[in-house]
Amino acid sequence: MAMAKLVLLVSLLAAAGTSFSCAAWNIRMPTARTLEAVAARLENEVAAAPVIHALRPLLGSAGELGRRAGVPCDSWRLAVETYNKRDWKTVPASCESYVGHYMLGGHYRRDSRAVIDEAVAYAEGLQLGGNGKEVWVFDVDETSLSNLPYYAKHGFGTELYNATSFDEYVLEGSAPVLPETQRLFKKLISLGIKPVFLTGRTEDKRNVTVANLHSQGYSGWANLLLKPLGFQATTIAYKSGERQKLQDAGYVIVGNIGDQWSDILGAPEGARTFKLPDPLYYIG
Amino acid sequence: MAMAKLVLLVSLLAAAGTSFSCAAWNIRMPTARTLEAVAARLENEVAAAPVIHALRPLLGSAGELGRRAGVPCDSWRLAVETYNKRDWKTVPASCESYVGHYMLGGHYRRDSRAVIDEAVAYAEGLQLGGNGKEVWVFDVDETSLSNLPYYAKHGFGTELYNATSFDEYVLEGSAPVLPETQRLFKKLISLGIKPVFLTGRTEDKRNVTVANLHSQGYSGWANLLLKPLGFQATTIAYKSGERQKLQDAGYVIVGNIGDQWSDILGAPEGARTFKLPDPLYYIG
Repeated sequence: MAMAKLVLLVSLLAAAGTSFSCAAWNIRMPTARTLEAVAARLENEVAAAPVIHALRPLLGSAGELGRRAGVPCDSWRLAVETYNKRDWKTVPASCESYVGHYMLGGHYRRDSRAVIDEAVAYAEGLQLGGNGKEVWVFDVDETSLSNLPYYAKHGFGTELYNATSFDEYVLEGSAPVLPETQRLFKKLISLGIKPVFLTGRTEDKRNVTVANLHSQGYSGWANLLLKPLGFQATTIAYKSGERQKLQDAGYVIVGNIGDQWSDILGAPEGARTFKLPDPLYYIG
Repeated sequence: MAMAKLVLLVSLLAAAGTSFSCAAWNIRMPTARTLEAVAARLENEVAAAPVIHALRPLLGSAGELGRRAGVPCDSWRLAVETYNKRDWKTVPASCESYVGHYMLGGHYRRDSRAVIDEAVAYAEGLQLGGNGKEVWVFDVDETSLSNLPYYAKHGFGTELYNATSFDEYVLEGSAPVLPETQRLFKKLISLGIKPVFLTGRTEDKRNVTVANLHSQGYSGWANLLLKPLGFQATTIAYKSGERQKLQDAGYVIVGNIGDQWSDILGAPEGARTFKLPDPLYYIG
């Protein structure tokens, strides 16, 4: 298993390196560096056998790769992103390579950039009240920080969620920044709109989350709202309840961004919502 | 202009013919036939000069085609489908070929199939009350009937909306069926769930709409709700108001499907909503 993962990961890194420009790699350096580290770690885990792997031609993650596997992985991904497909537990096994290429090959970054471009344009067009009450809600995982180093080691979402191993990863505090989101975050602060983090992470992870956010270049947020330990409710109920409290405290939620529909559905949603791509997992 | 359109259309048809299997064409015959007719009509409009057009390699609509134009058309499309991009007037000019290939080359059909598969699975899992009160709301344009023959002649959404020429097309009553949606429609009737059409088309188009729906194989709907002439409201306000009336009359809206977010947003939305792809136009 570890060997197969290593072969896939090395081939993805190699393929990405040959198919995309150096400029693209420079932009994505934080993620690329982290994944090289993951590859190196994986290499230590398996015996140091020579890896010989014929690279398949990369025709774009939505092209032949998805079709050849007999599953239209690009249609699956669109159905996920548009909230047509719900309550799914794992990425289809036949889409592991597709999702891996999507996440690592520049497509994910490109799709994220298109969302953030819209968010920035919207924010720049806002008329603020001048009383400093405007806030923008940010989710954390797969919105502000990326858990891709974990998912690259765990089948890109094809494996069932494992709370133990995922928590171990979170407690490392090593999740890399999602740079497009950080561009929005910094723009909002420059405009006078206060970022508020609202996450499904629980209170016991406050310190590591703060440290991880700081180490990745986030600072100046107004609040970091974590879920009380043992709190029982759906994500939609939890998050919309927290947004209601913000409103009740006099704040105006001008924007709300997340990678899950459960981050942005449920009144009060915020004046405008933005959905970042995430083909790795579903939170209802 | 007409010549350029013809060249694109002929090249799209030719490219699709060489790149996709006969089986795929058989499935899509209604649309394909209509478009051949459009091509023939366009050919009559321009002088019968020989059309020599080097086909570019077709690497999938989300692949090189979008990138080569300098615009990430696939990221634009995802932003549209996920409601991140709103209030847009036209498809970017550089994405005309991309959208044309998407719509005609099998990708649109494949994405639609993935949505309908989810809708059928959901419908089959419903527990009905046994009183015949369950209804499913269908939009008409780009949901039940396709206006692709019109848009193929008008730049695949890159031209500004022209109410006069579009109305002329609608009044022909020739819009082909969207076969995936019809599959859901017929499944619902077999399950005892009543389809209700709810469209932004105005009352003066009732007869042609009924005839067009019948000629394309739709029958057995419970109601066809058209907008009163001169009615002033947003689509969301109009459609959610009509859904409220359905509920007030004792119906249970178990499902709601459309190609625009304005078809499915606004309480009461229906117990579950489905968003079909549509990169051709935006209705707010």
